[in-house]
Amino acid sequence: MLVGAGPGDAGLLTLRGLRALQQADVIVADRLGARAVLDGLAAEGYALTAEIVDVGKSPGHHAVPQDAINALLVQLAQSGKAVVRLKGGDPYVFGRGLEELAHCRAHGVEVTVVSGVTSAVSVPALAGIPLTHRGIATAFTVVTAHDQISALGGARDHTVVLLMGVGTLAHAALTLSRGERGADCPVAIVEDGFGERQRVTVGTLATIAHQAASRGVRSPAVVVVGDVVALSPFAPAELAASVAVKEPVLGKASS
Amino acid sequence: MLVGAGPGDAGLLTLRGLRALQQADVIVADRLGARAVLDGLAAEGYALTAEIVDVGKSPGHHAVPQDAINALLVQLAQSGKAVVRLKGGDPYVFGRGLEELAHCRAHGVEVTVVSGVTSAVSVPALAGIPLTHRGIATAFTVVTAHDQISALGGARDHTVVLLMGVGTLAHAALTLSRGERGADCPVAIVEDGFGERQRVTVGTLATIAHQAASRGVRSPAVVVVGDVVALSPFAPAELAASVAVKEPVLGKASS
Repeated sequence: MLVGAGPGDAGLLTLRGLRALQQADVIVADRLGARAVLDGLAAEGYALTAEIVDVGKSPGHHAVPQDAINALLVQLAQSGKAVVRLKGGDPYVFGRGLEELAHCRAHGVEVTVVSGVTSAVSVPALAGIPLTHRGIATAFTVVTAHDQISALGGARDHTVVLLMGVGTLAHAALTLSRGERGADCPVAIVEDGFGERQRVTVGTLATIAHQAASRGVRSPAVVVVGDVVALSPFAPAELAASVAVKEPVLGKASS
Repeated sequence: MLVGAGPGDAGLLTLRGLRALQQADVIVADRLGARAVLDGLAAEGYALTAEIVDVGKSPGHHAVPQDAINALLVQLAQSGKAVVRLKGGDPYVFGRGLEELAHCRAHGVEVTVVSGVTSAVSVPALAGIPLTHRGIATAFTVVTAHDQISALGGARDHTVVLLMGVGTLAHAALTLSRGERGADCPVAIVEDGFGERQRVTVGTLATIAHQAASRGVRSPAVVVVGDVVALSPFAPAELAASVAVKEPVLGKASS
């Protein structure tokens, strides 16, 4: 069973995901997100009896190569064990879930997929940022590869979520600022979402790389680009004021 | 508390979401997705003691206007009740979550947000479609408004998820087929994901509108456009064969 652990907070695991973990003989877990969820479940008193195999993919450090993970999953399943492959976020959003599933199926091992809460949506939410908002944004794009960024159309009402490393932020911001969004488009970085180092940095495409460098921003981080960032309580007042809401949504309360 | 119910399957509710529902005095639920989750929880034996207020927003039919929902949430909270606003999917993905939250805050009612599993990711997964896949797609865009589609850049390695109604499918497919993706780009429609009428239709940008009409495809439906669609077990063999995998990912199993 291929289970999305969510963004690293045990409370955001799904009920089906929990049940799978409780019934598993072996859990093969990524370090990023998945381990935090297992630790969180233990802290909340959920007793998991499964053996936990940590295949430890942290950013820039692949403890166990993908081929070895694939082989391990097949070997465990063929030995008759109930195996859960626990992946951070959702298995089908930059999770390489289908690669592992296809490998298992090719070896006669059937796999069920349990979707999870993706970091692309839930980590921005930590900073009070909705990916869409009536009158402000009606589309969003989630991207990791830099070559995709240069091909991105859309303006500030089309939110962009960057899941790439902090090291490529300056290049990405420069590329996006040359498009229709412009250099003063709002940007937020949410570092270590749901983790101990969680921190929000808000700026613009023009300023964000400098801010990130001076604050020592580190991976893992989720970057959000677009006018929705100005809705965040972390946004400075002048940035919030700069965003034109097409309809008087937020002011409606007093009408 | 503003809680994402997930795509309409009680098993995809989060642990924190369940706890909120169990502790609530009143649950204000959308018809789409949220009601199905409450029914599913009851069927699985979870006893919820809260009063359930159905504000019934099904597609094209707004039983309770947004202003009235906003006012109701404030009124319930100010009467001292523990209120859960349960929304289908994730509250911050086309959920108008922040509108309700902003209204509550403007009236002195504090709101916590609990992210949910978004339909944009989990409904395509039902058809075996990952939104990203190494060598096939490294970005995805989720969109509802038609004016955003015409501004979309990217090719088939940039997946597009349309959450708009089935009625606008023909127009959307035509617009997308004129871009870099081309008329033979694979498309899947997943109707009524997690519901009783769940059904998958696979074609291309050129054929999908005709297929949808002849099969009587109805809303709610999630439409996926891009080469990842060819990975679906529902894709016809000739479509699957037409997709060039940049790396021999799926064939690796036999190496």
